[in-house]
Amino acid sequence: MSRVLVTGATGFVGRHALQPLLEAGYDVHAVSSAPAASPATDGVTWHRADLLGDPAGVVRDVRPQRLLHLAWYAEHGRFWTSLENLRWVEATLALVRAFAAAGGERAVCAGTCAEYDWTTGAATLAEDAPLRPATLYGTAKHATHQMLDAAAPELGIALAWGRVFFLYGPGEDERRLVGSVASALTRGQRALTGDGSQIRDVMYVADAGAAFAALVGADVRGPVNVASGEAQTLRGVVEATGRLVGRPDLLDIGALLTRPGDPDALVADVTRLRDEVGFRPRVALEDGLAATVEWWRAQPPTS
Amino acid sequence: MSRVLVTGATGFVGRHALQPLLEAGYDVHAVSSAPAASPATDGVTWHRADLLGDPAGVVRDVRPQRLLHLAWYAEHGRFWTSLENLRWVEATLALVRAFAAAGGERAVCAGTCAEYDWTTGAATLAEDAPLRPATLYGTAKHATHQMLDAAAPELGIALAWGRVFFLYGPGEDERRLVGSVASALTRGQRALTGDGSQIRDVMYVADAGAAFAALVGADVRGPVNVASGEAQTLRGVVEATGRLVGRPDLLDIGALLTRPGDPDALVADVTRLRDEVGFRPRVALEDGLAATVEWWRAQPPTS
Repeated sequence: MSRVLVTGATGFVGRHALQPLLEAGYDVHAVSSAPAASPATDGVTWHRADLLGDPAGVVRDVRPQRLLHLAWYAEHGRFWTSLENLRWVEATLALVRAFAAAGGERAVCAGTCAEYDWTTGAATLAEDAPLRPATLYGTAKHATHQMLDAAAPELGIALAWGRVFFLYGPGEDERRLVGSVASALTRGQRALTGDGSQIRDVMYVADAGAAFAALVGADVRGPVNVASGEAQTLRGVVEATGRLVGRPDLLDIGALLTRPGDPDALVADVTRLRDEVGFRPRVALEDGLAATVEWWRAQPPTS
Repeated sequence: MSRVLVTGATGFVGRHALQPLLEAGYDVHAVSSAPAASPATDGVTWHRADLLGDPAGVVRDVRPQRLLHLAWYAEHGRFWTSLENLRWVEATLALVRAFAAAGGERAVCAGTCAEYDWTTGAATLAEDAPLRPATLYGTAKHATHQMLDAAAPELGIALAWGRVFFLYGPGEDERRLVGSVASALTRGQRALTGDGSQIRDVMYVADAGAAFAALVGADVRGPVNVASGEAQTLRGVVEATGRLVGRPDLLDIGALLTRPGDPDALVADVTRLRDEVGFRPRVALEDGLAATVEWWRAQPPTS
C-alpha cells in the first residue's frame, strides 16, 4: 500500500482530498498545524507539524512515497501581496527536497490560475498559455513550479502541478463571492455584488479535492489545470444562489464596482485533466451551490 | 556612514567588491563561513556565519542599510544542476526578508546571463531580452529575481539584480577556460581547448567586483548586466594567454570538442551599467590576462 502525505489537509481544498485518496487505496497521512481542526476522517493518520518552522521533520517521520502539498498562505485579501508567500516558497522547496531525500517518488503541488497572463484575452487557458503573474502570490507559485520542475530530475521525483481556478463550496471565506452572497442571504441580509458580467471557471471545492487525489494517482507530469472547463457568468452564479436560498429579492447586483483590471473571462482548458488524468467533475453548479447554501444555513448566527 | 553587508565576500567576485565599497565610504561588513580564508582588507569587519543554516542571524546582528548578496553554490561543473541551488534560493529569500525586517533599504544580488534565452541568436543581450533559463542554476536565479522583484514593494526595499556574464582572473577555477590554460602553460604543460570559435563577453573579475560595488551605491533598480559589452572570441582569449605566458607553442586549440548546444555568441548590452550606474570596466583584456598569468605563476606547484 502506497503512503501519501497530504499538507494543508485541514484546508478548504485539502479536506476534500482525503476520502478520495483512502478510496484509491492509499495509506493516508495528513499534516496540520492544528490537528484539533482535523476533519473526522476514519483511516487517516494525523501529524502535527509547523511546516514553516520544520518543513522536513514530518517527511522524515512518515517517509511517504507520494506527496500532495496543498498548504500555503491563504488569508483572504492579503495572500495576493503578503510576504508569507516567500516563507511558503522556502518551506515548499525544503519540504520537497526532504521528500525526495526520504525516498519520495511523486509530488503533486497546488499552483494557481494567477500564474497565467490574464491580459491576453484568450477564450480558454491551456497549460501552455503565456505565464505572466501580476501578483506576488502568482509569482511565488510560478517561481516554485519553475524551480521544482527544473530540479525534478536531480531530485529523482515525478512532479505534477495543479493550477487551481475559482473554487466555491462549504467553508469558503465569507469575503469571497459565493461565501458572501450565501452567508448574507441565509441570514436574511442584503447581498451587494458587482455587475457579475465577468466569465469565470468555477468548480465545487470537493471536485477540486478529488481532482488533486486523482493527480496523486496519475502518471501525468507538469502543469494540469484543476478546473471545470465551463464558462459561467458571475451574475449567473449569484442569481442561482439567490434562487436556492429562496431570497432573490435580497440581491443587489451591480451595487459594487468591478475591480479595475479584473479580466472579462478566465476559463480553463481542461483537456489534460479530463483525458490524461481521467478526471471529470461530478458536481453540477446547481448542486454545488445547493450544498453550499445548506452549509451556510447550518452555521451558527454571528453576532 | 552607511553600513553594507557583503555575502560571498571571500569568493571569486566578492573579494573584489570590498575595497571599492570602502573607497566609496561604506562601513563594510563581510560574512563568510570560513573567515580564515578572508582577504586581508583593512577596515572590513568580518562575521562568521553559515547562511544556509542561519540566514537571518548575521543580518539581525549587523543591521545593514545595504546588502550585497553574492554568496551562492559555485562548485565548478556541478553548480548547473545541483540541488544546492534550491538551498540557496531558500537562504536568499530568508536573508532578504530578514534584511528588510531589520531596516535594510537597498539590496543588490548576483544573477547570471544563464537566465537569458541562449537560443535566440541575438547579437547582444539587453536586460529586457527573453528569459528562458535552460539549467537548474539559471532557473533558480531567475525565479529568485522574479520573487524578490515582486516582493520588493512589500519588503520596502529597492532591489537591483546584476546579471554576471563570463569572468576570468586570479583565483578562477582551474577547470574553467582561462584558469585551465593559464595554469597549464605556467607549469610548462600543454593546454587543450575547443576550437575557440565562440564569441563571449569576458570581464576581469576585479571589474565585476567594482561593478557590484557601484550597483550598491547607485539608484538603479531591476536587472543590470555586469559585463564588458565587448565581444571576444575564446580563441583570441586563449591565444593572448599563450603569448603572455610566452608559450604559445603549448596551445592545442581545437583538440577538445565544443559542448553540444553551446551558443555561438553571448555578449551583453551594457548600456544600463554604463549610463545608469555610471560604471565602465577599467581593466583591458590584455592587462587582465597578464595579471591572471602572474597569479598562476605565483601559485605553488601542485603534486
